[in-house]
Amino acid sequence: MPLDATKLRNAPGYSDLEILVRAQRNCDPILRAAVASLPEPFATMGGYHFGWWDPERSLTPATQGKFVRAALTFAAAAVTGGSEESAAPAAAAVELLHNFTLIHDDVMDGDKTRRGRATIWSVWGITNAILLGDALHSLAIRLLAETDLLEHSLALSIISRIEKSCLKLCLGQFQDCAFEGQVTVTTDDYLQMAGAKTASLMASACALGALSARADDEMVSAMDRFGYQLGLAFQAVDDLIGIWGDSTKTGKPVCSDLVRRKATLPVVAALNSNCDASTELRELYRSESPMTYRDVARAIELIEAAGGRQAAKHHAEERLRAAIALLPEVPTAAELIALSQVVVDRSR
Amino acid sequence: MPLDATKLRNAPGYSDLEILVRAQRNCDPILRAAVASLPEPFATMGGYHFGWWDPERSLTPATQGKFVRAALTFAAAAVTGGSEESAAPAAAAVELLHNFTLIHDDVMDGDKTRRGRATIWSVWGITNAILLGDALHSLAIRLLAETDLLEHSLALSIISRIEKSCLKLCLGQFQDCAFEGQVTVTTDDYLQMAGAKTASLMASACALGALSARADDEMVSAMDRFGYQLGLAFQAVDDLIGIWGDSTKTGKPVCSDLVRRKATLPVVAALNSNCDASTELRELYRSESPMTYRDVARAIELIEAAGGRQAAKHHAEERLRAAIALLPEVPTAAELIALSQVVVDRSR
Repeated sequence: MPLDATKLRNAPGYSDLEILVRAQRNCDPILRAAVASLPEPFATMGGYHFGWWDPERSLTPATQGKFVRAALTFAAAAVTGGSEESAAPAAAAVELLHNFTLIHDDVMDGDKTRRGRATIWSVWGITNAILLGDALHSLAIRLLAETDLLEHSLALSIISRIEKSCLKLCLGQFQDCAFEGQVTVTTDDYLQMAGAKTASLMASACALGALSARADDEMVSAMDRFGYQLGLAFQAVDDLIGIWGDSTKTGKPVCSDLVRRKATLPVVAALNSNCDASTELRELYRSESPMTYRDVARAIELIEAAGGRQAAKHHAEERLRAAIALLPEVPTAAELIALSQVVVDRSR
Repeated sequence: MPLDATKLRNAPGYSDLEILVRAQRNCDPILRAAVASLPEPFATMGGYHFGWWDPERSLTPATQGKFVRAALTFAAAAVTGGSEESAAPAAAAVELLHNFTLIHDDVMDGDKTRRGRATIWSVWGITNAILLGDALHSLAIRLLAETDLLEHSLALSIISRIEKSCLKLCLGQFQDCAFEGQVTVTTDDYLQMAGAKTASLMASACALGALSARADDEMVSAMDRFGYQLGLAFQAVDDLIGIWGDSTKTGKPVCSDLVRRKATLPVVAALNSNCDASTELRELYRSESPMTYRDVARAIELIEAAGGRQAAKHHAEERLRAAIALLPEVPTAAELIALSQVVVDRSR
């Protein structure tokens, strides 16, 4: 079933990328001021993480984050007639929270590369990476507690919602780690994990946009559910890129998810498919010995043969469709639709 | 010079310990409800950290925290006629924030024991300890964002202040780690570090008590400065206990600060004293080889001979006196004075 053609006609004329560029441009001064307020070495570390400079603070071009979450906040605000100005504190806070969790995740996962560069812990050590993450968490909350762009009751609602998401992110990261090397993870287990790890913050990013535009409860709830569905699509695409993507674009090591025997959707779908390929894949995942390049190459064949790639693609499309169906039939929804398509079509 | 006798006469009749017991009793239901709201395994881990049960959730008696910070919040509220009820969210949030940083600090410092039991990371691993710390940070903020005991503007002020303290704690922990094995740390460096690592949160604990009682800016500022001075005294006493304390009471390994060549106040004072003992101590601290028990025993003699123990004691007394001098001359200051004395006279 194709996507709803009526809704897709609302897509804006400018390139999809521009939505993200504008989100980044709106957040940039807020993030720079927040990071600059940190004492050293955290200001330098923070700016390095955001891609503004190298570890010696020379201005070298680096890949920055995609700003998908901030763009969702701005676009969700636009749906209900909110301004970019009043959505900006929540958008920047969501980005700070997201980046705090990335920095801590990299420590936990031992990941040495992100966005094509060495991760914070691999440059400054684990202690400083934990501290920078904690500091970005504090900065996210300070932004919201100290802004004069939001009414007090609204600022408190946004803070409460963002911290609830943070608690879900913690649970999702726990489950993601706990599922490594497990061959009995069901699709439901995966959905619960991906929901907590990824979809909950995307849901909040959208809900916060609606909240900052003073939308009614029904609209906030619709935006929340839209972001959740889109987040599940996003994670499925992330899982696909992690296996079949171009690592020069993702900035992550090749097939690190498979090397770590993570329970990504293509793998979970393959393992649960009950065929010869899934039996062989189960053996590979169950083994205690480190994955060789040969193992990884074989795993990729088996996942494909067991239908894991197709299942994950299908899932992403389904979730995208479910997300878009939750949007109100208004012209201002065009940006969210365009953004949704970027999320599913992206290569990094 | 003895402490101001007039002020000391205001000390309450009940045992100093009761202030702490009451603080703990007031926080207990709030902390239990907050921790119970966490998904597993974090609820079990959180309750273990707070001393409510063992890792299998059996109810075994364990040493709990001292609740000094919560007691400061309640006592500072009392000075300005505030109720325990309205101070409770801030007091519990301060304890949650403090405990989040303890859990992360134990990961960074590799400390295996706290309050006489295995630390969170040594039971559940580093990943789960980082996540539990992050979750307690979120719970602290949620308490304040969601309470109906505080006006909205007040809740936001408290959140902002608590996050500013958190940023200082991050800086203090960074400096504390960076100073390890350094022999050129001055007393001013130490004071900046201890101010950030310990005094800033005690300052906030007091300021938040005054804020929650709707005290005026002058009183909030006085409470903040009181807490800061007391925090410096607290850290100096902590440093003394770390060397000459009874580890069965502290619940920490014997002389772990010295083993790690930390720049505690007795050491910094000794290293800066310019005598034969300080020269020998400098050699011991500068060495790259691990500290043996013999080295530690010798270091203790040298610190004492170079006047480090006396200097730290003197500093703690001076800071206690400075703290008490900042208090208003009102009968309701009695609890803060009693609590200050407990802080300096404590053995754990």
